[in-house]
Amino acid sequence: MSFYTNITPQIKYMDNKIAVTIARGDGIGPEIMDAVLLILEKANVNIQPEFIEIGEKVYRQGFSSGMKPEAWESIQRNKVILKAPITTPQGGGYKSLNVTIRTAFGLFANVRPTKAMHPFVKTHFPNLDVVIVRENEEDLYTGIEYRQTAEVTQALKLISVPGTERIVRYAFEYARTNGRKKVTCMVKDNIMKITDGLFANIFREVGKEYPQIVQEIKIIDIGAALLAERPETFDVVVTTNLYGDIISDIVAQVSGSVGMGGSANIGETVSMFEAIHGSAPDIAGKNIANPSGLLNAAIMMLVHLGQQTVAATIANAWLRTIEDGIHTGDIYKEGQSVRKVGTKEFAEAVVQRL
Amino acid sequence: MSFYTNITPQIKYMDNKIAVTIARGDGIGPEIMDAVLLILEKANVNIQPEFIEIGEKVYRQGFSSGMKPEAWESIQRNKVILKAPITTPQGGGYKSLNVTIRTAFGLFANVRPTKAMHPFVKTHFPNLDVVIVRENEEDLYTGIEYRQTAEVTQALKLISVPGTERIVRYAFEYARTNGRKKVTCMVKDNIMKITDGLFANIFREVGKEYPQIVQEIKIIDIGAALLAERPETFDVVVTTNLYGDIISDIVAQVSGSVGMGGSANIGETVSMFEAIHGSAPDIAGKNIANPSGLLNAAIMMLVHLGQQTVAATIANAWLRTIEDGIHTGDIYKEGQSVRKVGTKEFAEAVVQRL
Ligand SMILES: CC(C)[C@H](C(=O)O)[C@@H](O)C(=O)O
Ligand SMILES: CC(C)[C@H](C(=O)O)[C@@H](O)C(=O)O
Repeated sequence: MSFYTNITPQIKYMDNKIAVTIARGDGIGPEIMDAVLLILEKANVNIQPEFIEIGEKVYRQGFSSGMKPEAWESIQRNKVILKAPITTPQGGGYKSLNVTIRTAFGLFANVRPTKAMHPFVKTHFPNLDVVIVRENEEDLYTGIEYRQTAEVTQALKLISVPGTERIVRYAFEYARTNGRKKVTCMVKDNIMKITDGLFANIFREVGKEYPQIVQEIKIIDIGAALLAERPETFDVVVTTNLYGDIISDIVAQVSGSVGMGGSANIGETVSMFEAIHGSAPDIAGKNIANPSGLLNAAIMMLVHLGQQTVAATIANAWLRTIEDGIHTGDIYKEGQSVRKVGTKEFAEAVVQRL
Repeated sequence: MSFYTNITPQIKYMDNKIAVTIARGDGIGPEIMDAVLLILEKANVNIQPEFIEIGEKVYRQGFSSGMKPEAWESIQRNKVILKAPITTPQGGGYKSLNVTIRTAFGLFANVRPTKAMHPFVKTHFPNLDVVIVRENEEDLYTGIEYRQTAEVTQALKLISVPGTERIVRYAFEYARTNGRKKVTCMVKDNIMKITDGLFANIFREVGKEYPQIVQEIKIIDIGAALLAERPETFDVVVTTNLYGDIISDIVAQVSGSVGMGGSANIGETVSMFEAIHGSAPDIAGKNIANPSGLLNAAIMMLVHLGQQTVAATIANAWLRTIEDGIHTGDIYKEGQSVRKVGTKEFAEAVVQRL
């Protein structure tokens, strides 16, 4: 597994270890983070965790962003954050912390790889191996919304030339440096001719610099449908923020479970690594959540930090755990020599296989 | 099959037949429309086709809407149109004719039912039976887009109280009158708190009037993913225009083929019936396209016109054709007693089974 980034982060070292900001989050966050940190520690990764508190409790203390100044400073200083899912309280003008971090630190690329683990995790698509490269700052995520009259509300969708160029180029560079063969662009440019049309045009332009990579544009409706029904025909997909949100959940789910997906939010200087799933408050504190999504995010983080070897060690131990039929409930299917375990036991099983 | 509408269209009768506007469209349009009209004629439906020309040729003659005044008048007069897919030329400010007809005639509800035809059409989901009720006039489909600077483009997403109330009520009434048990609302109200939040709130409010119907709200990312991976857990889904566009293609595709889906665009006085797929110029004129999507649209039209009996006769003949293993290429899978046929031969096989 190799992970393209054109950026060398200025990492601060403490005791020869790389300081990394860690947010344990809400809901199932703390338990899956503990599971992941146990694995990282036992694998002897070269990082020094620096914990910050963000999310629900902080929102309720009156910080409308869900983050205190010291948390901001920690991310700014360390440049790398591993973040468990958080809960944004309903109503009351609370802004999504995910989105705030992405835009405040300019994390323009959201990279979401998914690979089927057939036959160990049940899927209809044993050859699924797709990377969604999602634009991460623009589109309908800017939060510019208003109620014009009692009856009319509107939201602004933003697509810019620099934002699009950057993400499209990132997708092609990712494909090139990871030996990927095809990049598909998905937008709705038959309806949004100016905004999505801009995205498609820049895709065509930048694509000319990558003649060795197969290129195609699909309308998002049929594109999402084909990703759901024959995902093995896709390779790298580049798209705008909202479509990327939707199709990355689709791909993860049809590969077996959204519980397995990790993601990298990459910026010029700061990067954030997180699971693609949410904080699942309904199953929190029960030791049943799957730590794999966050673990895969941590593995991407280690690669980003240049710790390829230990990243591979952990990835292999995780693969062997799954292959040995040691599964959390979300991917567990009754069968011979398959064992259902809790979050903690799953982490211990990975540790045993390091 | 029953089809809810709270509207009694004022239909004009000619020779005791109900006049219906027919647009043969572009690409595969003419051949699938001919196939459908053959079946309707042989089934002795009580309609009198009135043909209009719309689409590519008309755009190129300088009508930027893709329609001449006489076509508008025909729809206005007849109140019902059966429309084959059309092609909008690329670039040059051509507006989508689909969208123009939907908004010009106030076709606020786009109803897209999909049912698995297992084992006759291959699918992973034999129990799939989902109806997408898609808002059809608002959202990002209003076409309000602009380039603000050389580098920045924006589009407006509109969600209104009356538009939302109307579609949500339509979905619940559809569920009630068709014996459906559950209505799911899908939006992204954790990000678009004002626009999608409005949609979710109205869903909650209107839902109170239907205590006998199970109700749930799902974020569109995981909602679309679950529709792709376990569609049999959904029943009626109500959503905004763009999400509806995406998820109706997903559901049709995982049921076997987008080539089978019909849809009804319902307004206060006018209604339009069409396949959910496009004009597929790459396979046009080859007698290989599947006429089933347009045929299912025509069946919905007959029900809408009160011709339940003949609608059922056609629906059953079509079902028997599929069950007898007579398939167009898109759903054909090699096997015993399955026959691959062309568009025309498929229509003739349906006629034989009337
Ligand atoms: C939690 C939510 C704001 C977030 C998003 O919409 O981006 C999540 O769904 C994701 O995909 O990371
Ligand atoms: C052709 C296109 C404008 C249309 C849409 O986006 O609504 C189509 O995809 C549909 O779903 O009917």
